[in-house]
Amino acid sequence: MSDGDAAEEIMCATYRALCSHGYADLTMQDIADESSKSKAALHYHYDSKHDLLCAFLDYLYEQFVERTADLDADGPLDELLARLDVILQKSEDEPETFETALLEIRAQAPYEPGFRERLQRFETYLVGEFTAVLEAGMTDGTFAADIEPEDTARFLVTVLTGASTERVTVGHSVECTRRMLRSYVRHHLLAEPEALEA
Amino acid sequence: MSDGDAAEEIMCATYRALCSHGYADLTMQDIADESSKSKAALHYHYDSKHDLLCAFLDYLYEQFVERTADLDADGPLDELLARLDVILQKSEDEPETFETALLEIRAQAPYEPGFRERLQRFETYLVGEFTAVLEAGMTDGTFAADIEPEDTARFLVTVLTGASTERVTVGHSVECTRRMLRSYVRHHLLAEPEALEA
Repeated sequence: MSDGDAAEEIMCATYRALCSHGYADLTMQDIADESSKSKAALHYHYDSKHDLLCAFLDYLYEQFVERTADLDADGPLDELLARLDVILQKSEDEPETFETALLEIRAQAPYEPGFRERLQRFETYLVGEFTAVLEAGMTDGTFAADIEPEDTARFLVTVLTGASTERVTVGHSVECTRRMLRSYVRHHLLAEPEALEA
Repeated sequence: MSDGDAAEEIMCATYRALCSHGYADLTMQDIADESSKSKAALHYHYDSKHDLLCAFLDYLYEQFVERTADLDADGPLDELLARLDVILQKSEDEPETFETALLEIRAQAPYEPGFRERLQRFETYLVGEFTAVLEAGMTDGTFAADIEPEDTARFLVTVLTGASTERVTVGHSVECTRRMLRSYVRHHLLAEPEALEA
């Protein structure tokens, strides 16, 4: 087994262990139990649970970037809606237990600079991608010329963050957010807004 | 000291203890240390840390309802902006340590039905208040007749939730959210939208 295969196996085991145990009570043994490796073997790859979880956040980031790199979209409007959908759909497809574990990890960011740094990198990536799509759409006349692309991108990311948090805290589906975001884009960002439907 | 005074003192001590210790490591002793009471006296009022924190969430809810009951607003637009501002300002005024502790508590909602029930009550209250202001503004012609008041109210709450989460996870101020929310209200919800300013 190559180092890459071993890392991939450990990341998959971490995912399953987070789904089963949450973040707070997670131990290296729980992760070992989900893999073919011993706890000692895990410690050979990662010094601590903290290091392993930092690697896991890197893994999620890379997976996400890969998944969104080749969105098959037809122009800026379609691409923006597709990018929003990927994240909402991900939120919907993941077990609630995993989103809960992720929110627990997020809530540790002020105590764990390694977590915060990775969450910031992810947020910067998302804002950058949305900004680029908005700018492309402003250039080709899809989106209104007077929007602030970076502020608007941040706003969209804030909405997605809120939807994910609410799924965990109050158990909402992301359906209302999806509807409102699509409406926001179609009626407020387009250069020639669509009429509101009943 | 009346029971009410004792409860108030314990709630204030809980607030300070959450600011100092966060949620995960908080003990009844930490809360007792912030008050004039012994740990045994705390247990006389509350069976467990869980019960005490449920009472604390009730206390935050009641404080919030009281604070927003008599907003001195001049019409639905002014009231909607004031309601959004109260929450953003609260997020800005609280120590980051307290918002972090609250997010830790929120992330426990799937494991702690007592927490989730209280978070749902708060969310329902907020959505109800925003819906009422939007409906009042639709009736008097302030807001566009074709908005969906309840969906829009939920959307606003999702944005506020996202802003609070991001403050903890990536350390953002709520300033961009405040600007974008004001712009959303003024340019997208008004019956006669204001022109965008540069």
